[in-house]
Amino acid sequence: MSNNVCKGTSRIAGCRFSVHPMTDDFVNVILSALKEVDTSKVWLETDDVSTCVRGKIAHVFDVTEAIFSHAAKTGHHVAFSGTYSIGCPGDTDGDVYMAENNRKLNTPIAINQYAACDFALYPLGSDSYMDKIMEQIEAAKQRGLTVEGIHYATKLKGEADDIFTTLENAFTATQEHNDHVVMTASISANSPSHQKGEDDE
Amino acid sequence: MSNNVCKGTSRIAGCRFSVHPMTDDFVNVILSALKEVDTSKVWLETDDVSTCVRGKIAHVFDVTEAIFSHAAKTGHHVAFSGTYSIGCPGDTDGDVYMAENNRKLNTPIAINQYAACDFALYPLGSDSYMDKIMEQIEAAKQRGLTVEGIHYATKLKGEADDIFTTLENAFTATQEHNDHVVMTASISANSPSHQKGEDDE
Ligand SMILES: [Ca+2]
Repeated sequence: MSNNVCKGTSRIAGCRFSVHPMTDDFVNVILSALKEVDTSKVWLETDDVSTCVRGKIAHVFDVTEAIFSHAAKTGHHVAFSGTYSIGCPGDTDGDVYMAENNRKLNTPIAINQYAACDFALYPLGSDSYMDKIMEQIEAAKQRGLTVEGIHYATKLKGEADDIFTTLENAFTATQEHNDHVVMTASISANSPSHQKGEDDE
Repeated sequence: MSNNVCKGTSRIAGCRFSVHPMTDDFVNVILSALKEVDTSKVWLETDDVSTCVRGKIAHVFDVTEAIFSHAAKTGHHVAFSGTYSIGCPGDTDGDVYMAENNRKLNTPIAINQYAACDFALYPLGSDSYMDKIMEQIEAAKQRGLTVEGIHYATKLKGEADDIFTTLENAFTATQEHNDHVVMTASISANSPSHQKGEDDE
């Protein structure tokens, strides 16, 4: 469990995540989403529980957003659960990917894709980051997202693209002032509960 | 985002989680799992992304294990993603549940249920907890679980019941020495990837 006690030296970022399509056809949804995404700027490994991508912040968010978006565009109820981390190298597996430039390889495809997201940001070993987070919350509202404080998390609702922008900016801003940052995100699309919520509003 | 800067005063624990059955019948799997679980010793709230349970540590783990187990026994590929937290009250909604005794209300039903779990433990604002975690890793091995360090997490494989015991004990031991502890867990059952992995071994 060296991941929990490391001191960040490399600025390689990573995300360990799962995509869960709630359909009998889940294998095809996952495999075709993975096939449509350009992952050549990240280190990537998949096992029986999750997938881990590592590299520059921009590409970690690019790839996770693209995989979620491709799965969501099938119309199936899809959930993404991920933990983004930085400042916890442990090894040098992915260091070669830090030489990539910041140009994202995947173009946004989740146009008009409603989604809801619970996220929580943990700058480990730091107390003085509320200003940065409040700036990101304000920026999320400016993008048109609904923002709500809930137990243990903050809920974002709106365009999937705006949600991922908010997550990436919040993570990026926080890690500028903290060696080790962890952010959890659970994102849901095409849920029957979403439709009910939207009708009710 | 007061959840991120609180100092723990109440010892109420909580878990924000989602259960994702990868079947067209996902709504029935979730609803019937919830119906079969006795949640009377926890505060509970469900929204469009996740469910939050709060109360004593024993009951938070009892209820989350029971919901996962009931969903898994349907035989469908089921994934559980949750974040367990303690030391972050923010409010007093669930405080009445802290008066419950520790007797768990749900009996183990996941007999012979293979599962795999990625978990990570974050004692916020602390560096000196490796001994406690190593004790828990050792105990997990004694239970017969396979334990493997992976990027950003530790992987457990074996009986679902043993996995939840390990999670509960690791969380309990760590929070005895840290005000604010967060633990993420992604648990998967009945996955086609699991079967492949088991055959390969
Ligand atoms: Ca148990």
